[in-house]
Amino acid sequence: MNRQQLIQQIREKQSFLCVGLDTDLNKIPQCIIDEAKAKDGEDYVFRALCEFNAFIIDATAPYCVAYKPNLAFYEAYGVDGIMAFEATIDYLKEEYPNHFIIADAKRGDIGNTSKMYAKTFFEQYDVDALTVAPYMGEDSVTPFLGYDDKWVILLALTSNKGSHDFQLLQVDSSQLTIDSSNPSQSSTVNCQLSTKERLFEKVLRQSQQWGTEENMMYVVGATQGQMFEDIRRVAPNHFLLVPGVGAQGGSLQEVCRYGMTKDCGLLVNSSRGIIYASQGEDFAEVAGLKAKELQQEMAAELAKL
Amino acid sequence: MNRQQLIQQIREKQSFLCVGLDTDLNKIPQCIIDEAKAKDGEDYVFRALCEFNAFIIDATAPYCVAYKPNLAFYEAYGVDGIMAFEATIDYLKEEYPNHFIIADAKRGDIGNTSKMYAKTFFEQYDVDALTVAPYMGEDSVTPFLGYDDKWVILLALTSNKGSHDFQLLQVDSSQLTIDSSNPSQSSTVNCQLSTKERLFEKVLRQSQQWGTEENMMYVVGATQGQMFEDIRRVAPNHFLLVPGVGAQGGSLQEVCRYGMTKDCGLLVNSSRGIIYASQGEDFAEVAGLKAKELQQEMAAELAKL
Repeated sequence: MNRQQLIQQIREKQSFLCVGLDTDLNKIPQCIIDEAKAKDGEDYVFRALCEFNAFIIDATAPYCVAYKPNLAFYEAYGVDGIMAFEATIDYLKEEYPNHFIIADAKRGDIGNTSKMYAKTFFEQYDVDALTVAPYMGEDSVTPFLGYDDKWVILLALTSNKGSHDFQLLQVDSSQLTIDSSNPSQSSTVNCQLSTKERLFEKVLRQSQQWGTEENMMYVVGATQGQMFEDIRRVAPNHFLLVPGVGAQGGSLQEVCRYGMTKDCGLLVNSSRGIIYASQGEDFAEVAGLKAKELQQEMAAELAKL
Repeated sequence: MNRQQLIQQIREKQSFLCVGLDTDLNKIPQCIIDEAKAKDGEDYVFRALCEFNAFIIDATAPYCVAYKPNLAFYEAYGVDGIMAFEATIDYLKEEYPNHFIIADAKRGDIGNTSKMYAKTFFEQYDVDALTVAPYMGEDSVTPFLGYDDKWVILLALTSNKGSHDFQLLQVDSSQLTIDSSNPSQSSTVNCQLSTKERLFEKVLRQSQQWGTEENMMYVVGATQGQMFEDIRRVAPNHFLLVPGVGAQGGSLQEVCRYGMTKDCGLLVNSSRGIIYASQGEDFAEVAGLKAKELQQEMAAELAKL
């Protein structure tokens, strides 16, 4: 799906909601497990994962524009999990071909290895987008950028506490010149600082030399509030994938106030807050209601544009 | 496998070689493909991957202490690939239980997702170690550290060209104080710099608050030569996993000169230089010879300790 088609979907549905499919057998309703066991006995895992996802997708599709299965949750069940991931993608492509599909896998490796990952996700699974980690730099990211209408979603400023460890560090892109004429004053130095920014800003700026607004988005956690202002200074038009609304505590209003662009420019993800909102037999209905609530808040935000 | 057992294996085998199992159907010998097709017809992928790996492992096991299957190459074949990855791990554990197994997957995500990846690799596949990307910080790494005799191998300074984009940036861990008393001299400022180091050094230093020499190693590319001196200043005793010897151009002698510790402290990986050294019917024999050559160079380096 290309940028114009995505913007069109957001306008039609009055929603920029992405539903995260973090499907965990320990959290899905017992009725799904029981039914899968009744049909497949001990080999119930594949069916349970697929059935849960199908119910959630059917209930939420009118209110969202994207789905984001998180690979960790599928890999945890080995071959059954991978088959369920594939079947979920197939289900989405068949039943809801206008929904944007993001594989949340946070891949990234040396060139020849990233090329293999790109083939896997963009040719074999044929998803629209893949989350990618930036630490290994340009040649770990560019192999994902050679596909028409496919997207890299690069980690910039994530929603977790650990984002403070490295992403917020001040980095100096220029050559540092230290004036050590008085070595006894070792803690105070004169230095030439032509570019001073934080690591996530450097990632945003540098990666714009590799991709464009048409094939690259960024992950920015909703928990980062006013930081969206800083993000928009460096990446004024790129779409941002925003996790962390709901279970992780981020505020939709704050994200929109500081992060929304004239084209919306946001895909706001909710996983646990929707898919595990109820663990009873009404789980799909409640998931649909939660998605609808978010969609209505989003419609109100879009109306301000 | 714990640290003492690994050091013991290195002493016994006089080798610190890790063989990378980047198994690619486009590069393995035609004879393996033909044989797999003769047995399984169009469903030949699983057999071809497993057979190739088994031949390579049997030929190289006397000369190496570790194997490193790269997940990208298995995921590329979907369910067949994941089954071949599992079967290769099972084969290693059964036939070569004293070899250290590294899943090269470069995972890392928010806490609850990293916990799922940890379960997958350390409980389900039961490998000894997993490569992990540091960008998301502490809570993305610590879920992998709660397992006895299992290891995180954290990316520090990688072997690829893109390592220069972010890993070598100067970062400032302290609060920056800018003296802007004369705003016209905006390019020269006085700043208080209590800690100044490059990002990979910050990753090395910070992560030592999360793990120990008993459960954490670092990836440092062989292509980085004298940088090993800098690495050893920050991480004097940790084991380093060193890719980039061979196809990527790194020098074993240089790595040893600057990176070796009294306990060896190195696992040097070669993938393409061993497993694709011949594409004829003699591929396993030639792989064994290439591994033996490296083992002998390594024995000479170990003799200097």
